[in-house]
Amino acid sequence: MNLEVKTENTYIEDLNWRYATKKFDKNKEIDQEDLNIILESLQLSASSYGLQPYEIFVIKDEKLREKLKDVAWNQTQITEASHLLVFANLTHVNEAYINTYLDNIAKTRDMSREDLKGMEDMMKSTVLKLPAKDQNDWAAKQAYIALGNLLSTTATLKIDSCPMEGFDAAEFDKILGLKEKNLTTAVIAPIGYRSEEDQYQHLTKVRKSKSDLINII
Amino acid sequence: MNLEVKTENTYIEDLNWRYATKKFDKNKEIDQEDLNIILESLQLSASSYGLQPYEIFVIKDEKLREKLKDVAWNQTQITEASHLLVFANLTHVNEAYINTYLDNIAKTRDMSREDLKGMEDMMKSTVLKLPAKDQNDWAAKQAYIALGNLLSTTATLKIDSCPMEGFDAAEFDKILGLKEKNLTTAVIAPIGYRSEEDQYQHLTKVRKSKSDLINII
Repeated sequence: MNLEVKTENTYIEDLNWRYATKKFDKNKEIDQEDLNIILESLQLSASSYGLQPYEIFVIKDEKLREKLKDVAWNQTQITEASHLLVFANLTHVNEAYINTYLDNIAKTRDMSREDLKGMEDMMKSTVLKLPAKDQNDWAAKQAYIALGNLLSTTATLKIDSCPMEGFDAAEFDKILGLKEKNLTTAVIAPIGYRSEEDQYQHLTKVRKSKSDLINII
Repeated sequence: MNLEVKTENTYIEDLNWRYATKKFDKNKEIDQEDLNIILESLQLSASSYGLQPYEIFVIKDEKLREKLKDVAWNQTQITEASHLLVFANLTHVNEAYINTYLDNIAKTRDMSREDLKGMEDMMKSTVLKLPAKDQNDWAAKQAYIALGNLLSTTATLKIDSCPMEGFDAAEFDKILGLKEKNLTTAVIAPIGYRSEEDQYQHLTKVRKSKSDLINII
């Protein structure tokens, strides 16, 4: 099969358009309609069993963002972007959390909790049995699916983003009061509009060749 | 702000259309053009520093998929879908891997390796310093961004998918010969077309309410 044949596709064009934005235009704000689309897409993100073991913080508050920037290598995207998104995963999932989810399924799909016994046993025998550190990592990975989705949603809206792992998670947790909520910061992403001055937008994208990345069997 | 205002948006419609497909139509195959779009979108996935610390296996071979199904709770999506995608992350990243990437940047962007010294120091002082287990988890998370992207790409093409964590990773690694390549199976996703018989397609999507998922600050 020929992997190098290229086809016109809007979504691919959008992915080519996006890049990790280093400088945002401070004066351009995401409007309410687009923000609603972004948040709705995040709500629709897939996750293991559908458990969505994370919360998302959408931060506009300037003073709060200044504090967060101080513990994120002073990266200016945090304060200059239109909004800062913080993905915080559950550090552990307990039985009550799974029960609440099962109640939600039963209610949404007009089923009895009895009908969900198989699913309940499956979830409880896998997720609850994970060692503490693995449970945290499992939950963080689900947040990364949502991050992947965010990068796609924003690109389709021609809104810029910059996924970032360079921050002090313990300090973020403290500033946002996450520990009390059984949450910890997994990854963050400022979103908004690129500044004309950001030279990174002009650089050629660097990716592994398809033959290095993909194995066809 | 009113989170409940809904806006017409094709991407949101696509995300609503998608679901974790339990039964695929064995007779419907993804055509070459769509497959190329899917693989190109995966190549464009964002990752930490752009390091793409994973490979993707696109498996059509029936006998191989039978073997993999045996160590994945006999889930029939693995053999009945058009293709099985396996995301395998690097178990550790070494200096040579980072150097190859930096060479690729220099070549692609017509820069000297000297110009990349700052980036090199940053990558080496963070990624290489991670404890072994954390390096593996970091790499797996990057693969989950690609998974999130896959779910979006396929949805925009009206191609079905089913992200799956229910498999024996050690057995997958053995069958696919991943250990020798310093890789391990992170997550898998059969892709193809839903069977008309799959009752799950008719179920209402269950998600956390926006107020449970999202905090506006």
